[in-house]
Amino acid sequence: MSFVSRYPVTIEWGDCDPARIVFYPNYFVWFDRGAHHLMDALGLGHDALIAKYGVVGAPIAEASARFLVPSEYRQTLVIESSVESCEGRRFTVLHRGVRDGTLLLEGREVRFLGVPHPEHKGRLRAIPIPPEIVERFRDGPKP
Amino acid sequence: MSFVSRYPVTIEWGDCDPARIVFYPNYFVWFDRGAHHLMDALGLGHDALIAKYGVVGAPIAEASARFLVPSEYRQTLVIESSVESCEGRRFTVLHRGVRDGTLLLEGREVRFLGVPHPEHKGRLRAIPIPPEIVERFRDGPKP
Amino acid sequence: MSFVSRYPVTIEWGDCDPARIVFYPNYFVWFDRGAHHLMDALGLGHDALIAKYGVVGAPIAEASARFLVPSEYRQTLVIESSVESCEGRRFTVLHRGVRDGTLLLEGREVRFLGVPHPEHKGRLRAIPIPPEIVERFRDGPKP
Amino acid sequence: MSFVSRYPVTIEWGDCDPARIVFYPNYFVWFDRGAHHLMDALGLGHDALIAKYGVVGAPIAEASARFLVPSEYRQTLVIESSVESCEGRRFTVLHRGVRDGTLLLEGREVRFLGVPHPEHKGRLRAIPIPPEIVERFRDGPKP
Repeated sequence: MSFVSRYPVTIEWGDCDPARIVFYPNYFVWFDRGAHHLMDALGLGHDALIAKYGVVGAPIAEASARFLVPSEYRQTLVIESSVESCEGRRFTVLHRGVRDGTLLLEGREVRFLGVPHPEHKGRLRAIPIPPEIVERFRDGPKP
Repeated sequence: MSFVSRYPVTIEWGDCDPARIVFYPNYFVWFDRGAHHLMDALGLGHDALIAKYGVVGAPIAEASARFLVPSEYRQTLVIESSVESCEGRRFTVLHRGVRDGTLLLEGREVRFLGVPHPEHKGRLRAIPIPPEIVERFRDGPKP
Repeated sequence: MSFVSRYPVTIEWGDCDPARIVFYPNYFVWFDRGAHHLMDALGLGHDALIAKYGVVGAPIAEASARFLVPSEYRQTLVIESSVESCEGRRFTVLHRGVRDGTLLLEGREVRFLGVPHPEHKGRLRAIPIPPEIVERFRDGPKP
Repeated sequence: MSFVSRYPVTIEWGDCDPARIVFYPNYFVWFDRGAHHLMDALGLGHDALIAKYGVVGAPIAEASARFLVPSEYRQTLVIESSVESCEGRRFTVLHRGVRDGTLLLEGREVRFLGVPHPEHKGRLRAIPIPPEIVERFRDGPKP
């Protein structure tokens, strides 16, 4: 599971709080964006998932981050996103924020393929990850 | 460590994404808000920390969440925030999102009291948590 | 058109930018919220509009604001929202941000009742505002 | 006053609301970003303004937008920012959102160069725009 999707972030004025560093929930905005970019690159984007598997998407079950080095207005970083693991009905997306070879932060999202829960209105249920998706996570985008 | 600070959240239109549920990074916005409210209630608000301890505040080292039940536009929940533990130079704030007695999500923030790092410009270093702060975490607000 | 819907805002840490005042796009978030609260109070909330008039909602055509006094972390204000005018296919929502009797900012949203455009996919078309909605704007909530 | 700064925006999942189009306050986030990029390109970025003119920055006095065509997840647009006019103590930044030659939205920000108000704590006062800044607005970046 080594395919990595990368996208650059430039820290904007409005991303920062009065401490003059990134207001931390923004990192999760960028993780979500990274996950969407990664799934797109794998041919598993939102619309593809809905069309092929009848799911509502790949919603989030857990999210976490460790913040090592803060970033300020005008600084840049790259978000590197990859599927770290995939077991049963869940997969973990690893996001690494990197600048000049330095790891600034590291986050994980646990996601699943969700369908409306048959008994609980408004809730979702995870389906088993189809084998071809597991394969795609492992082998990366189709050549 | 049982003092709990509570504040209500009503899910607004702009909090939700095209899946019609809360865009998950918003929960971390509410965790941050809950942590500020909690620290305020304990007499350890941003300005008090700066004034008394010469720190830049109580920045974040780690954040995590488990999402159990999604919320939609117009629904309400209560964010219950408390200091769960405090060891060495770090303390953990537990946030529980609750509606009608149901736990919807649970999050944790690991925070520290930060001073500018003596060697690395732009980074922060944690100081030991002063005993009276540990005490306040344990006993709750001064009567 | 004098019915006014009011809701309080407390400025949170994450609402502010490195200048230590509210990052201005947040005011438009609060205008949108105010418009939803106002329409709800008038019995013209999102779901009611969809159900009764077959529209997709009351989307925005124009938005504007004049900022008179900045606000900082911990300060409070009240957003006062009212329908200022209603002509043809559009109505204007006036939002006033007030603290202790002082006007801090003033904004306007021009909204319309939108249906999918018959010719341009992804665009909306305004329908004439039904007379009973004009009346409700003028007379306020049903007793 | 014809120098135009351009930057691309790709609409992300989290930029959109349950109507599946961009939640409109985000456009003002992009206007603010566009204004920062424009000022940077003119050599009048935040730090330069502070260092050379002793101001706190170029805060906002007014903001407005007309929304012509909505945008959805995955769509792209270009924000074109330019100084439209500059009179007395204020200048107007024009932002145009364009896709494939179609104008999607148009916004304006009225900004000023602010110093702390001598009498009202927490407020700002506009200084006259220095002639070399007016010139830069007119002639574009130094070659």
